Amino acid sequence: MANMKPLPTLALLGGTGKEGTGLALRWAAAGYKVSIGSRQTEKARVTAAELNQQLGIDTITGMHNSEAIHNADICVLTVVQSAHQAILENLRDDLQGKILVDTTARVDFRDPKPPEPPSAGRIAQEILGSGVRVVAAFQNVPAHALRKNLSQPLDLDVLVCADDEQAWQEVIKLAQAIGVRAYFAGNLDNAIVVEGLTSLLISLNQQHGVKTASVGITGIDSQ
Amino acid sequence: MANMKPLPTLALLGGTGKEGTGLALRWAAAGYKVSIGSRQTEKARVTAAELNQQLGIDTITGMHNSEAIHNADICVLTVVQSAHQAILENLRDDLQGKILVDTTARVDFRDPKPPEPPSAGRIAQEILGSGVRVVAAFQNVPAHALRKNLSQPLDLDVLVCADDEQAWQEVIKLAQAIGVRAYFAGNLDNAIVVEGLTSLLISLNQQHGVKTASVGITGIDSQ
Repeated sequence: MANMKPLPTLALLGGTGKEGTGLALRWAAAGYKVSIGSRQTEKARVTAAELNQQLGIDTITGMHNSEAIHNADICVLTVVQSAHQAILENLRDDLQGKILVDTTARVDFRDPKPPEPPSAGRIAQEILGSGVRVVAAFQNVPAHALRKNLSQPLDLDVLVCADDEQAWQEVIKLAQAIGVRAYFAGNLDNAIVVEGLTSLLISLNQQHGVKTASVGITGIDSQ
Repeated sequence: MANMKPLPTLALLGGTGKEGTGLALRWAAAGYKVSIGSRQTEKARVTAAELNQQLGIDTITGMHNSEAIHNADICVLTVVQSAHQAILENLRDDLQGKILVDTTARVDFRDPKPPEPPSAGRIAQEILGSGVRVVAAFQNVPAHALRKNLSQPLDLDVLVCADDEQAWQEVIKLAQAIGVRAYFAGNLDNAIVVEGLTSLLISLNQQHGVKTASVGITGIDSQ
């Protein structure tokens, strides 16, 4: 490989759910060192062991969220929307100096509507302060698509919103590592659009009886 | 053809611009009877003549907006965002009883940001009242893509938002007639997401030096 810089270590915070484990599987399979973080250390360890078994590896570790953050270069928040604000307030001190990827879309699956501004990513940035570089991304990557056919690329694109250029560039690499195209889509305020898309995609899933509706960007490569 | 119901007659209101003429070309080429409407009758006539010449047909007509509405089953509003509210107030009486497709995205090309709710479609519905069925659609169909390679299908999908089911079903047919997949994406409030996408796509166009960035829905057919 031309670029011998080591891959960043990743922590999936609140990572025992479907989205967190799906992303962990994809990144671990791509060679990243991945920790599953949870408020419950034992739950994180059990989840990590299951993922290792699924991939036939032993590199995924499970630990408390705070410890996972401590060991990580990039942290990825994958909690249910109702836990978004509380976990950020809780982990504020631990996260200082890190990149935090916020995958949250504040949409109720039973009554999907576009959320009002500010975006979840902007809220996270305000809670965490300028010592943490927040990147909003992966809101519309269906857990179902992540977890099935690990050898198949995902048929979707990722829109990446952030205020800090180096941070969004790192996250675009993370997306590319799991086989998806990623596009910088402006600052954290723009992430309100990506969150709103989640509500539309939930409706599309329900209408079409699927779990994998997502979006792709067209008209850029084929110009 | 199994379905022998005649195609609806279409009026492109404010249809002398790039988006209106692009859509007019595609629908006329697909066999629809299309009028170009404008505040300036002569301008509408000149535009219609140019489009007829381009397609080698004589079915496209140009006339004042009010007359175009009178002759049409479905009206499609394609004005610049700054004219959106005024033209709706102006044509309110003429539009009663019609379906109005609102293609407006209230985004400034020089400083693209997601607009605040309510959506342009919701604003239109409020101005026009319940006698007009507003459908928000085609906001992210690039004029550049419409106007080039008329024989090629467009590489994008259309998200259709409306409160009235029969109206959105008609508009899904209009999209399919020009070779794009169209998805019902919920009521007019959801159109704020589609408008916001416009601001992201303008940024993507600028970053990538193209004019044709748009979106497609993935993960539905390939389930």
